[in-house]
Amino acid sequence: MTDQLIIFDTTLRDGEQSPGASMTRDEKLRIARQLERMKVNVIEAGFAAASNGDFESVRAIAEVVKDSTICSLARANENDIRRSGEAIKPAASGRIHTFIATSPIHMEKKLRMSPDQVLEQAVKAISWAREYTDDIEFSAEDAGRSEIDYLCRIFEAVIKAGATTINVPDTVGYNVPEQYADTIRTLIERVPNSDKVVWSVHCHNDLGLAVANSLAAVRAGARQVECTINGLGERAGNASLEEVVMAVRTRRDVYACDTRIDTTQIVPVSKLVSGITGFPVQPNKAIVGANAFSHESGIHQDGVLKHRETYEIMRAEDVGWGTNKLVLGKHSGRNAFRSRLIELGAAIESEEHLNHAFARFKELADKKHEIFDEDLQALISDEAVTPELEHYRLVASCFHSETGETPAARLTLNVGEKEIQAEAEGSGPVDAAFKAIETVAKSGTELLLYSVNAITTGTDAQGEVTVRLSRDGKVVNGQGADTDIIVASAKAYLNALNKLHGKFEKLNPQI
Amino acid sequence: MTDQLIIFDTTLRDGEQSPGASMTRDEKLRIARQLERMKVNVIEAGFAAASNGDFESVRAIAEVVKDSTICSLARANENDIRRSGEAIKPAASGRIHTFIATSPIHMEKKLRMSPDQVLEQAVKAISWAREYTDDIEFSAEDAGRSEIDYLCRIFEAVIKAGATTINVPDTVGYNVPEQYADTIRTLIERVPNSDKVVWSVHCHNDLGLAVANSLAAVRAGARQVECTINGLGERAGNASLEEVVMAVRTRRDVYACDTRIDTTQIVPVSKLVSGITGFPVQPNKAIVGANAFSHESGIHQDGVLKHRETYEIMRAEDVGWGTNKLVLGKHSGRNAFRSRLIELGAAIESEEHLNHAFARFKELADKKHEIFDEDLQALISDEAVTPELEHYRLVASCFHSETGETPAARLTLNVGEKEIQAEAEGSGPVDAAFKAIETVAKSGTELLLYSVNAITTGTDAQGEVTVRLSRDGKVVNGQGADTDIIVASAKAYLNALNKLHGKFEKLNPQI
Repeated sequence: MTDQLIIFDTTLRDGEQSPGASMTRDEKLRIARQLERMKVNVIEAGFAAASNGDFESVRAIAEVVKDSTICSLARANENDIRRSGEAIKPAASGRIHTFIATSPIHMEKKLRMSPDQVLEQAVKAISWAREYTDDIEFSAEDAGRSEIDYLCRIFEAVIKAGATTINVPDTVGYNVPEQYADTIRTLIERVPNSDKVVWSVHCHNDLGLAVANSLAAVRAGARQVECTINGLGERAGNASLEEVVMAVRTRRDVYACDTRIDTTQIVPVSKLVSGITGFPVQPNKAIVGANAFSHESGIHQDGVLKHRETYEIMRAEDVGWGTNKLVLGKHSGRNAFRSRLIELGAAIESEEHLNHAFARFKELADKKHEIFDEDLQALISDEAVTPELEHYRLVASCFHSETGETPAARLTLNVGEKEIQAEAEGSGPVDAAFKAIETVAKSGTELLLYSVNAITTGTDAQGEVTVRLSRDGKVVNGQGADTDIIVASAKAYLNALNKLHGKFEKLNPQI
Repeated sequence: MTDQLIIFDTTLRDGEQSPGASMTRDEKLRIARQLERMKVNVIEAGFAAASNGDFESVRAIAEVVKDSTICSLARANENDIRRSGEAIKPAASGRIHTFIATSPIHMEKKLRMSPDQVLEQAVKAISWAREYTDDIEFSAEDAGRSEIDYLCRIFEAVIKAGATTINVPDTVGYNVPEQYADTIRTLIERVPNSDKVVWSVHCHNDLGLAVANSLAAVRAGARQVECTINGLGERAGNASLEEVVMAVRTRRDVYACDTRIDTTQIVPVSKLVSGITGFPVQPNKAIVGANAFSHESGIHQDGVLKHRETYEIMRAEDVGWGTNKLVLGKHSGRNAFRSRLIELGAAIESEEHLNHAFARFKELADKKHEIFDEDLQALISDEAVTPELEHYRLVASCFHSETGETPAARLTLNVGEKEIQAEAEGSGPVDAAFKAIETVAKSGTELLLYSVNAITTGTDAQGEVTVRLSRDGKVVNGQGADTDIIVASAKAYLNALNKLHGKFEKLNPQI
């Protein structure tokens, strides 16, 4: 019998900390539902003490998701742990994940605490957590650069105090596989009662080794891997869930364990996360890149034809490629629409909500004859903006550009309760639209990124525009989709302004 | 003293085989010049026997690049090797890289040859190659699934015949680091005269392990790594050059070797390749992703402020971030423009060519007040289309879209010698523009991909549009840049049609 490898997804916590990847509560809920459907064991839903918004997100996910354990991150202090404990209360299975730095450089320069003080604080943290749950994970921040003797000492203490999972993060992505595996092996050998806990790894990808480090640790005895969809995460990101899961499955001969993941959900979840964050997946990304399973070369195609196995080590359909079928058209009814939305993880909060979405669907079906899952995802994303957050809204627009003339935009916007006309010229119609919006909003933001992807293939595809704005160090992403790219751009810009309008200050921890 | 690790870049060969990444001769030349400037040791410039176009590209690069070895791939047959030998003749230092499959499944199902026949063919290939150069590389295709005894036998034979580099590719990306390192170690131990040759690795990233496998092999004694910019390559791509180079440099303590790469060129080359192929680099890509060096989190920033080293293992400026400065403006002169183009690797073929580009630059400077390197790159890309390939050209355009009306486009196109008017309506202005073009071109192509990236930040940035079209299994990318996104889209579509118009059939080998 092969061991089970626990998949701990931190897309909603570490992934969300990527500059520009912040998500609304509803977006997080949609991703969490899909992670549950994919059979992720543990979903790190957020860092409850970071802000009220984060607390609400964790709590909402704990209320809805029942087949995955819901985890909240907490620094090793009483307030963080109590906030986490409250947030995970509704969960069928809840975990508190507490962390403190253990490397000399961090203890000295950041915490300004002695090793003994850090150890004492960690033990206290576990005891606070135990008031809420028996499922407690402890992380030694910057373990990759910590002294092994000290790690043994602090892990022994937290296990004794009741920690059930011990996580050994490579916070700065400095480790290489052989060395990281040695660390894990040594810890499992030396820490008393190491067989009573699950050993976990959390690797960053600064040198491109996050997946390799995680897998090397699995061979050394780790049985939980912390990872994210598409390898999202701070800087170069975390280990990608899809690569870890497929490496273990494809090479069971080497890793002697397997996950419970339903791999056919991998590509749909990847697309969902990419769509919500506006972070594209490069075509040559392993498993989920558009080219990952393409076999172009002539010589190679010959090989494939003669004997499939010659070049294929995985099948595209096993990870969910080719399952994004044509789902709905102009004549699809309300029931078909509703059940597809539910399958896509959308929350239908009321009949009114459904009616509104259905009307939008019919509008789209008039412009575009084939409606794919991706179109529905975009439509839900648009719907997901809760009205109270929608300070700015596009009512109508008119664009004109012609060789020899300056492109111009004329917009009708809803701002709060008022309808306002705005117009401007620009170096292109998108520039003109943004400038028209700014005549009203005067936001003082800087445009950091503008990108468009067609949601599906074909010339009548919807363009999904991502706009990234920054102001005073805050970064927000806005999305908008429409068959008219200029309209989509204006919607995306307004969406970003709305997010900036409602954004709370929050802390992002670093493990 | 640390050993030198030879960096063998195959962006122009294996990278170019990615579906949709095919490049023109001029695009390849621009990339080759930048690879030389980055001090890549060996540039695999193409597969000379694949097509006349490939032959010409390899030859053109061999004529221009003098500080890197220029290599052409060849199957182990006389024609391929003679074509490669001719193509690399102008090089200051030229290499022939020949390959044949050595795994039981490939020999039996694809080659339909016995192991003895394969060995004999390999030895013959080396002797043909020796007529052209002493620098000969031999690859055992699908070495990762070949029998070790047979590999020893064939490598012994080709070394005796004169091969100077022995490459052990993991063609299907099936290996894991420990196992791959074992293979390399065993080969070096067992093959007679293994110390007379350079051992090379070529890993594919299907399980996300290409870099880790390459590095594990380096620890086992490999001294050449075959890699690509941004990890481009068939399916999930090859090992990324930037990750391999920076891992070795950052962890010299572990790898005991270093490269001669000028790492400050890494980001500029990454952007150039991404721009030319239209393959985006995801923000969380290690080293070259836009977020790779960002440090957003509050806790973390605190750490950075207190002590820089707390979270940084590399410095952004060491890999070329932050070097894309504002270079030119409205008042920049012809000389400043010329010297910047040369620094960017552009070929200025004549004064007329320069004048034309300069006029375009002035036009752009009227619309956009800050001109960055990326804008110049886009301008060169536009210029690089040789007139004889430019069957379709946009002369003028007019677009209109308004809420409640159907978006419309009216274009004036140059088709061959004729000027033609075209107009159409569509679900958006881009769709209308494409439909207008198709009323004239009737190309029968399918639109596979449409994406836009702003070339720089700011609302007046140029949009760079990539359009991927396919017809009868041929896939081409078109690019277009303009401050008006609809104009850029029309240009990109026409650019793709022009490429399809002039495209040759070619073979793509698989190692």
